Amino acid sequence: MSVQPSAQEELLEKLLDAAARGHVTQVTSMLSHVPSLINQAGNSGWTALMLAARHGHYPVVEELLSHGCDKFSVNASSQTAYDIAKFWGHRHISNLLGRTDDGCLRVLPGSDLVPQENYFGRETLDRLSAKRTDKEWMEVRQKDADTVYLLFSSLSPMVSCSEGDGTEETKLCRFRYEAVRDLLQKPATVLVFLGVERRKTPSSSSSSSSSPQTQEISKEPPAWFAVGTDEDAAELLKRCREKNCLFPKTPNRDLLKLSEEEAGVVAQARSVLAWHSRYSFCPTCGSSTRLEEGGHKRSCLNSDCRSLRGVHNTCYPRVDPVVIMLVIHPDGNQCLLGRKKIFPVGMFSCLAGFIEPGETMEEAVRREVEEESGVKVGPVQYVSCQPWPMPSSLMIGCLSVAISTDIRVDENEIEEARWFPRQQVIDSLFRAESPTFTVPPRQTIAHQLIRHWIGINSNL
Amino acid sequence: MSVQPSAQEELLEKLLDAAARGHVTQVTSMLSHVPSLINQAGNSGWTALMLAARHGHYPVVEELLSHGCDKFSVNASSQTAYDIAKFWGHRHISNLLGRTDDGCLRVLPGSDLVPQENYFGRETLDRLSAKRTDKEWMEVRQKDADTVYLLFSSLSPMVSCSEGDGTEETKLCRFRYEAVRDLLQKPATVLVFLGVERRKTPSSSSSSSSSPQTQEISKEPPAWFAVGTDEDAAELLKRCREKNCLFPKTPNRDLLKLSEEEAGVVAQARSVLAWHSRYSFCPTCGSSTRLEEGGHKRSCLNSDCRSLRGVHNTCYPRVDPVVIMLVIHPDGNQCLLGRKKIFPVGMFSCLAGFIEPGETMEEAVRREVEEESGVKVGPVQYVSCQPWPMPSSLMIGCLSVAISTDIRVDENEIEEARWFPRQQVIDSLFRAESPTFTVPPRQTIAHQLIRHWIGINSNL
Repeated sequence: MSVQPSAQEELLEKLLDAAARGHVTQVTSMLSHVPSLINQAGNSGWTALMLAARHGHYPVVEELLSHGCDKFSVNASSQTAYDIAKFWGHRHISNLLGRTDDGCLRVLPGSDLVPQENYFGRETLDRLSAKRTDKEWMEVRQKDADTVYLLFSSLSPMVSCSEGDGTEETKLCRFRYEAVRDLLQKPATVLVFLGVERRKTPSSSSSSSSSPQTQEISKEPPAWFAVGTDEDAAELLKRCREKNCLFPKTPNRDLLKLSEEEAGVVAQARSVLAWHSRYSFCPTCGSSTRLEEGGHKRSCLNSDCRSLRGVHNTCYPRVDPVVIMLVIHPDGNQCLLGRKKIFPVGMFSCLAGFIEPGETMEEAVRREVEEESGVKVGPVQYVSCQPWPMPSSLMIGCLSVAISTDIRVDENEIEEARWFPRQQVIDSLFRAESPTFTVPPRQTIAHQLIRHWIGINSNL
Repeated sequence: MSVQPSAQEELLEKLLDAAARGHVTQVTSMLSHVPSLINQAGNSGWTALMLAARHGHYPVVEELLSHGCDKFSVNASSQTAYDIAKFWGHRHISNLLGRTDDGCLRVLPGSDLVPQENYFGRETLDRLSAKRTDKEWMEVRQKDADTVYLLFSSLSPMVSCSEGDGTEETKLCRFRYEAVRDLLQKPATVLVFLGVERRKTPSSSSSSSSSPQTQEISKEPPAWFAVGTDEDAAELLKRCREKNCLFPKTPNRDLLKLSEEEAGVVAQARSVLAWHSRYSFCPTCGSSTRLEEGGHKRSCLNSDCRSLRGVHNTCYPRVDPVVIMLVIHPDGNQCLLGRKKIFPVGMFSCLAGFIEPGETMEEAVRREVEEESGVKVGPVQYVSCQPWPMPSSLMIGCLSVAISTDIRVDENEIEEARWFPRQQVIDSLFRAESPTFTVPPRQTIAHQLIRHWIGINSNL
């Protein structure tokens, strides 16, 4: 074995280096001279495509693909460039690499896959939870002219609805301190600090002079608060100057009309307010409680209560983890969907249920599916999750594979469950003329799980 | 293009068929005649190895590997045989295929990877949740001679400890109905139905005759109950005939000595009992409550309470979702671990924190890591989860990749956080003579996450 690398080896290392550093012109030029380098792996076992995918260089990936690069070659860890891009979070690259060639009937194009962000899941605000115990800071922020207040009545936020050109728009009504000042004085009002707007660009903290405190605060982005009140809803609506304001009556339908940003804010606000509404008394001793930490804690007013010694979950908002799962038939080409009596006619959805104490997510999937449908489940795979503030669930979305196929429905839970062939599901998702059934709207994780299954390039 | 398949093509289809059906002798014989078939893909794009992996034929996979089969070739969906075996839950095959060749210094052998079952996570019993509302059935099972009772005092189960040949064994003390009958009459006793033992082989239900009800019940496997009592612990210990019985004083250490089976039972029992102990009063109105549904529900005794109208989470045990995450340095070769003041000297662990209302798992990971350590996190990947009955957490374990590296610790939360190089972590896990630091014991998901990171064949 020669110690000196050959000219070919030297060229390859140069190409790999250019790909890793994102030098697209250098990559192009080298490939025009020595096209055979394109799929070659260096000493590390990595090809140019893998290195470009690792370091997030989209133009290089594009260039390599346009030269006919083999996107399915793997490194010593059996990872393709797609796996690498996905692992390192370069979603635009994994989408590009995941795309299937036209004419492949088995699957939909990868670019059609929705990114793994679900409705209610966007974190619009920075919660700044460390500030919740800083009473002084909190008071200053409450009175700040830029601070945004949202008004809730019976756990519904005040929104304005505008209809035009066929598009309906629902927006949160935003109030300033002066407009809600009186409400904040009332004892029944619940005030929850939601966070501050995320900075676009981090400002340097090197500037100084003038009163440091005001300086510090005036630099901070606007804070947001949710106000839960028991005042008369009609009276509250008069406070708003916008047209067509209302408190939606059916939150699990009406709240789905908000923008992704506002839905993310409402997810937090409604869950915490619902907790206050249900948990005003200390569950440990039955005494009254008082709000603390910007509305994120309730402490028992009975000084003898053991909930005051140590940390107790009774003092903090509850989050209920729920599993929701798409069960795939062992043949890989059908999925199990069920319907509850309360569903709209013709709608089927994923099965779901609360995780019980002492149970894993995967076991909860197996138990719930068997309880509700009689179908036994083997492997379970987490896909994505969604906060669902009705009142405070965390929907944990999974794919799972059935190991039995006979359906025996628990009629207390669901009305019907069926195996649906992939083609029927595709028809239903993409609005065929007369689909056999309908699925829940795109804002639900059930919809996203079904789409995910259709989208994964599976020929299993 | 000829319509008739060539002899070679015919042979290939025969080999693929044999591999898919698990005919190892046929595979061996064909390969000895035409060795070149081994890595060839059929019309479906699948190789013999992929088909054997898909259908769970371990001997065929072994045979193919012994003939030098290329385990890294991929199908049109860029899946290797390993990916296919993993997806379809053939863990013994994915372990075999995931094994790295000796001499590869970058990674530990795949066979060293612990399966994704965490301590407290085994579901030993079938919860039969539908039976919780069946009072008659529940009463019959309580009095059944085979029924198993576990005794809890201050949320600790009575256990017997035996020490011998250097191995310490901790076992749950099991009682029969007659031995706890008096306790069940006392008003302060909390009784929780845990489930029935899982059947080894499902018995056919075709047999009939004799009283159908007794027949039905006598066929059922033993039921398990947890008894929470406030009787004097020393008096309770006298009930047990076994030696060295006790109620462990430090559950989060002592309960880790149980077998996997018993730990799974305790996970459910302790969480539900802890909920009863903390939530005896209705949080909505402060009234007393009564136990229902086999100890899985508490209903308010105040008939005007709104918690009685509709379904309310106040009536059901609480499960607190927690994210626990191993943060990987952008260079792929270091991980972030922190230590709390209460940790044993030299111990570091994964960062963790409660998921907040309206938050996704992935956002909770990003928020907690930034709050506690100042490090910003990009991609997050779920690995596995673990029930942690102290009192009722669900630990959701994730790997995540940092997008910044400067550490700035929140001293209220943790004492120190550091980037540890992979080699130091390996030394710590596998008991080097004098490791730089220690990690939590194997029963914790923190330990398993760290091992998982070391175990994944990553040369990223």
